[in-house]
Amino acid sequence: MVQKIKVAILGYGNLGKGVELALRRTNDMELAAVFTRRDPASVHILTENVPVLPAAQAVSHKDEIDVMILCGGSATDLPEMGPQFAKDFCTVDSFDTHAKIPAYFEAVDQAAKAGGNVAIISVGWDPGLFSLNRIYAESVLPDGATYTFWGKGVSQGHSDAIRRVPGVKNAIQYTVPIEKAMEAVRSGAQPQLTTREKHLRECFVVAEEGADLSAIEQAIKTMPNYFDEYDTVIHFISEEQLKAEHAGMPHGGFVIRSGETGESGCKHVIEYALKLDSNPEFTSSVLVCYARAAYRMSKAGQTGAKSVFDVAPALLSEKSGEELRAHLL
Amino acid sequence: MVQKIKVAILGYGNLGKGVELALRRTNDMELAAVFTRRDPASVHILTENVPVLPAAQAVSHKDEIDVMILCGGSATDLPEMGPQFAKDFCTVDSFDTHAKIPAYFEAVDQAAKAGGNVAIISVGWDPGLFSLNRIYAESVLPDGATYTFWGKGVSQGHSDAIRRVPGVKNAIQYTVPIEKAMEAVRSGAQPQLTTREKHLRECFVVAEEGADLSAIEQAIKTMPNYFDEYDTVIHFISEEQLKAEHAGMPHGGFVIRSGETGESGCKHVIEYALKLDSNPEFTSSVLVCYARAAYRMSKAGQTGAKSVFDVAPALLSEKSGEELRAHLL
Repeated sequence: MVQKIKVAILGYGNLGKGVELALRRTNDMELAAVFTRRDPASVHILTENVPVLPAAQAVSHKDEIDVMILCGGSATDLPEMGPQFAKDFCTVDSFDTHAKIPAYFEAVDQAAKAGGNVAIISVGWDPGLFSLNRIYAESVLPDGATYTFWGKGVSQGHSDAIRRVPGVKNAIQYTVPIEKAMEAVRSGAQPQLTTREKHLRECFVVAEEGADLSAIEQAIKTMPNYFDEYDTVIHFISEEQLKAEHAGMPHGGFVIRSGETGESGCKHVIEYALKLDSNPEFTSSVLVCYARAAYRMSKAGQTGAKSVFDVAPALLSEKSGEELRAHLL
Repeated sequence: MVQKIKVAILGYGNLGKGVELALRRTNDMELAAVFTRRDPASVHILTENVPVLPAAQAVSHKDEIDVMILCGGSATDLPEMGPQFAKDFCTVDSFDTHAKIPAYFEAVDQAAKAGGNVAIISVGWDPGLFSLNRIYAESVLPDGATYTFWGKGVSQGHSDAIRRVPGVKNAIQYTVPIEKAMEAVRSGAQPQLTTREKHLRECFVVAEEGADLSAIEQAIKTMPNYFDEYDTVIHFISEEQLKAEHAGMPHGGFVIRSGETGESGCKHVIEYALKLDSNPEFTSSVLVCYARAAYRMSKAGQTGAKSVFDVAPALLSEKSGEELRAHLL
């Protein structure tokens, strides 16, 4: 019997749990351990006979683990965890602070090279599958313009920002792409679009009893960076309604490139769209197939930090080269 | 100054001309020569100061060429050309007879390895970009179903088949995806669809004077393999109308995968769509960026036949790793 790829999870939140679930849908990978910075006794995982261990002990288990999937957040967890774990493990993470990717890549690259490991950073759908579509579309149509639209989906960052407004008890924010802008892009017209023209922000807010609703509305709509450059729609609802109707974590979006070829300027439109019931479960599924690639690249003697741009698609699939050419090419 | 990648074209039809045009939109590649099996004096290319030479003399120019793009047809040209040229050149081709890809890959692989070259086969949009979307989507969502729809677009094979019907002077056939089937797929329902339910065939036919139109209609609609399994719509039009309204070579299509994750079966839909004004110009643009990859893979010491599955996306782009991570990731 062929040995399965042994995968460990660092951090057991929505993403870590999603990785555990995604591993169950593979035939060639298995969960080896879950590492946590919480008290391991307080963390209950779904898989039987798999240990939950303190993150601090991870290094002593390195020989039992082929790939460590880092399921921490990009704000404070990953900038520290990424370089630290890449020294001892092949890693995959979902670092998604776009502006800080170059510096993060360098830090992880140094650590991974020093340890002789492969570390694939910024894996998921954006960055991740959307990035892939941007590079393929731009490489094929160098003369053109690429547009990314997000939603309709829940933005955790914007929901959290609303929750910090005085008088707000709870809130969920949806990012909504504006159909008119998407249609203009699909026409091949390559329009110049402002932030306001591309996305709408729709908020479902539970106010504390007696709170000044118009003050809350004003505070949200004028919040710098988060809302001031957008048209924002606010609905005040009850806590029960929020729980009943807005408990899911749907998301999605679109990458559209239009460009031209030839002497007469033939127009072409390439569109990629995701519609996701669960953002964390989908992101986890992407992480898991890149863990397969990290393992294979490491076995092939590669080291250092990689992004999705550096990974040949065949490395993501359970299927052999022969099967892929016969059935998917 | 950095040396440009020197690309040669074998075969100067629609595809070869498209490659010439696509090379003009790159900064790092240039046309080195066009090889033809016709009389070179009869072939007029757009680029000045580039030689048009007999295909039989190609080998004597191998030191002046980094990559040869094989612009022949899949039926008779490529099965011979592919292995023959991969012995002496790094090559890229658009071999698209799906059922024969495994055997073609083996033949080209042997030749490319013997010659120490990289040969990327079956490049274009299907096989090609559509194949990439099938492998990415299936790797991320192993439990699900993938559907490919083609059109609306001109099928040369079906147009040619109609032209062979007695009494037909000229014809163009459009493959049309059926919206109802696509909507069912997008809903995540994973429907079982028959050939007839997925695509419609729409034909614009110029009949010879005095021809029996109902006999033509009958002959087309019952033609085995090409039309008998489809609903076919036939319009008789004049030669002038055909030239005025159906001279383009538009095409496109959709790859849609729906699948589920997690314990509760969260649904996700991944959709990729192309809308192309010119099928050959777009296909040529894909060939050109894979020529860049073939050159880089060869410089990195690789040899043998490859498909789009084996090519890391970064190899397709003019941009450096740093630029890609900063701007596209």
